[in-house]
Amino acid sequence: MTRADCIRYRDELRSHLTEELLPFWLDRLLDTKHGGFITHFDEHGNDSGEDEKSLIAQTRTVFTMSYAHRHGYGGGRCSEYAEHGVRFLLEHAHDAQYGGFYWMLDREGRPVVTKKILYGQSFAIYALAEYTRATGDARGLEAAEELFELIQIYCSETAYGGYLEMFERDWRPCGPGAEGGDRKTLDVHMHLMEAFTALYATSSAELHSRKLREIITLLVTKMFTPQGTGIPQFNVDLRPAPQIKFDIVWGWDRFAEDGAKANPLDNTSYGHNVEFAWLLQEALGELREDIDSYKAVIRGALEHAIRFGIDQSHGGVYVEGPHNGPATDLSKEFWQQAEVMTGMLAGYLEFGDRRYLEAYAALHGFVMERMIHHSTGEWWPLLNRNGEPVWRHMSHSWKVNYHTVRAVVNCIERLTAVLDREALE
Amino acid sequence: MTRADCIRYRDELRSHLTEELLPFWLDRLLDTKHGGFITHFDEHGNDSGEDEKSLIAQTRTVFTMSYAHRHGYGGGRCSEYAEHGVRFLLEHAHDAQYGGFYWMLDREGRPVVTKKILYGQSFAIYALAEYTRATGDARGLEAAEELFELIQIYCSETAYGGYLEMFERDWRPCGPGAEGGDRKTLDVHMHLMEAFTALYATSSAELHSRKLREIITLLVTKMFTPQGTGIPQFNVDLRPAPQIKFDIVWGWDRFAEDGAKANPLDNTSYGHNVEFAWLLQEALGELREDIDSYKAVIRGALEHAIRFGIDQSHGGVYVEGPHNGPATDLSKEFWQQAEVMTGMLAGYLEFGDRRYLEAYAALHGFVMERMIHHSTGEWWPLLNRNGEPVWRHMSHSWKVNYHTVRAVVNCIERLTAVLDREALE
Repeated sequence: MTRADCIRYRDELRSHLTEELLPFWLDRLLDTKHGGFITHFDEHGNDSGEDEKSLIAQTRTVFTMSYAHRHGYGGGRCSEYAEHGVRFLLEHAHDAQYGGFYWMLDREGRPVVTKKILYGQSFAIYALAEYTRATGDARGLEAAEELFELIQIYCSETAYGGYLEMFERDWRPCGPGAEGGDRKTLDVHMHLMEAFTALYATSSAELHSRKLREIITLLVTKMFTPQGTGIPQFNVDLRPAPQIKFDIVWGWDRFAEDGAKANPLDNTSYGHNVEFAWLLQEALGELREDIDSYKAVIRGALEHAIRFGIDQSHGGVYVEGPHNGPATDLSKEFWQQAEVMTGMLAGYLEFGDRRYLEAYAALHGFVMERMIHHSTGEWWPLLNRNGEPVWRHMSHSWKVNYHTVRAVVNCIERLTAVLDREALE
Repeated sequence: MTRADCIRYRDELRSHLTEELLPFWLDRLLDTKHGGFITHFDEHGNDSGEDEKSLIAQTRTVFTMSYAHRHGYGGGRCSEYAEHGVRFLLEHAHDAQYGGFYWMLDREGRPVVTKKILYGQSFAIYALAEYTRATGDARGLEAAEELFELIQIYCSETAYGGYLEMFERDWRPCGPGAEGGDRKTLDVHMHLMEAFTALYATSSAELHSRKLREIITLLVTKMFTPQGTGIPQFNVDLRPAPQIKFDIVWGWDRFAEDGAKANPLDNTSYGHNVEFAWLLQEALGELREDIDSYKAVIRGALEHAIRFGIDQSHGGVYVEGPHNGPATDLSKEFWQQAEVMTGMLAGYLEFGDRRYLEAYAALHGFVMERMIHHSTGEWWPLLNRNGEPVWRHMSHSWKVNYHTVRAVVNCIERLTAVLDREALE
């Protein structure tokens, strides 16, 4: 990557963000009738009409709008959108009786699935904290702190550490197996780390820093191998568990018909691993904690992704594969491209290893040429290895805008840091 | 032990309780000027004047009075005393700003040590829950539930499981080493199990049963050996730690001048082990959980105490010794006699092993003849092996009445159950 490449990449991302990606969302999000956001769009960017407002999509959009505003985008509109979203969350998604946020509402804001799913609660904390950080409106942090306390009371699991993840409306744990009540997952714990980082960055509270440190320890010592590859699922006692599909999901992960993986105990996600790596860097930065004892796991995640995850001929990053060996699912999912782009730049800025810049370049080109559906402005959800769309919607409850907008904002900042720091040739 | 012995033992305990032990306390406890209880008495039973009201002594006395009332003693006076104590706790020991209860007050009820020590908080839960259970006054359970939630928020340790134990007034953890902030102990976790059992018995709340199950799992899998002997201290990551003396203590444990034990990594307490065994039986009973998978640890605790702890020539039970070998501290402490008496009867009722009745008999005789200071009505705190008093006070902040009254009430009930169940010869 030359200096000219770096400038060009940044220019391309800026144009994409301000001319395609943010306009896509600012033109479509607001539900002025029922409050909150419309988040279902077909391949042409038209409202596809699903009668649902998911906790994930509503909170992620609050996050996205707040984050974009804090980084100087939107000229005030993003902040207004965020406030509009927070109002809907507090008035409709919040459970005044038991606390916490419902999993699924209909478009009019009536609860449809009242379960308390920790993955969703973590995004509520993330979004509400980021909202206060970006706007100064204290309502966000107040609701985030209250939810954080409920999670400590009802979700923390004190026999082995970590958190239970799936609960009924009144915070009784769901049953075992597909109900998910007897599992702990990397996905949820990693997003709790992300949420606690934002919460601590906004509150400066000792308690929030403490729980952030604890979850980092759990993730690094139990949920990642020493080589920096993540293990997706665990039993309550933190023994790795065969990866199964849950009744309540927040993505369209590929499982066989029976809900099993072909390789349920040797499977790791390049996107999660590298996302974890850069989120961990961010967390350590907020904690002002030395990175030294975490370097092995961070570099390990990047090295594994470069060795097995990045498609050296077509560009982009594959979906998943074993802990040591070639990828087994060669399709290219939108969020994994976004997270690995961010993580490779963060890794370069920390370690100065030029191979991370080359990895970024292999992703950047693939995303610009294949992943972005330029006629709408958003990204395709899933491509095959060659870059042909497999799924074609622009948004649904599990996609929306958090990965794409965050990555583009992040990569613009990090490319600027690369340019500031040293003269590339 | 013959049927006649059993009847005689029960009669002796009844006389002791109603003519000596309860009158000792009912004559002396009330501080009608400043509220709460006077809990410092010299060997003659006179107020020894220490200007302190400890959280431990106040809560334990609330427990004792409530427990005695619930079991039919005191003719209403015990209930009045308990209410008097609860009022003092809520008005003076409770921290309205940060929640939780102060560690030490002076006699007038002003806070002296404002630290939040989990051992003390666990007795607050135990006492307040038992108070509501015994009297129906909802103030106790309400305060216990609020405190339980604070403990989940501030004390639970989510990287490895269990709870941190020593906190400043605002719930920041204390420093490492003698401040105790980097240790987890069997003592505190066992008493949390006891407190959560009482809380669940009073509330029937799913959350309370869940946290009770979790702490049982932690105790059985990490804090006890498979042979049923307890390990006193651990690092935060639950590796056994050399036993050190903390700055804040709640007993007069025997350490060398430098705060170390002669055998800091191979030391176990017969009293704690057997107390744990019967408290675990109680907890499983409240949870309606099968005892089968816990039989090994319960029987192990009793067998170890019989083999190494009980003084076959003089009667009574020693203080402590290694996990496998003869006792090293041969003195006889009041609370260990009380807990092992209770535990041996509970063990006999569960397993039908006559040796447990013989062990009870060896304790009963020693207590009646040596441990009880009949001229006052309370028990000596510490005797040497032969039964001569080493310490001579009848009560101070760490002694009071909970072990003695609870054990006597308990043993009367259990001896009745022994008599009801079968014809001893």
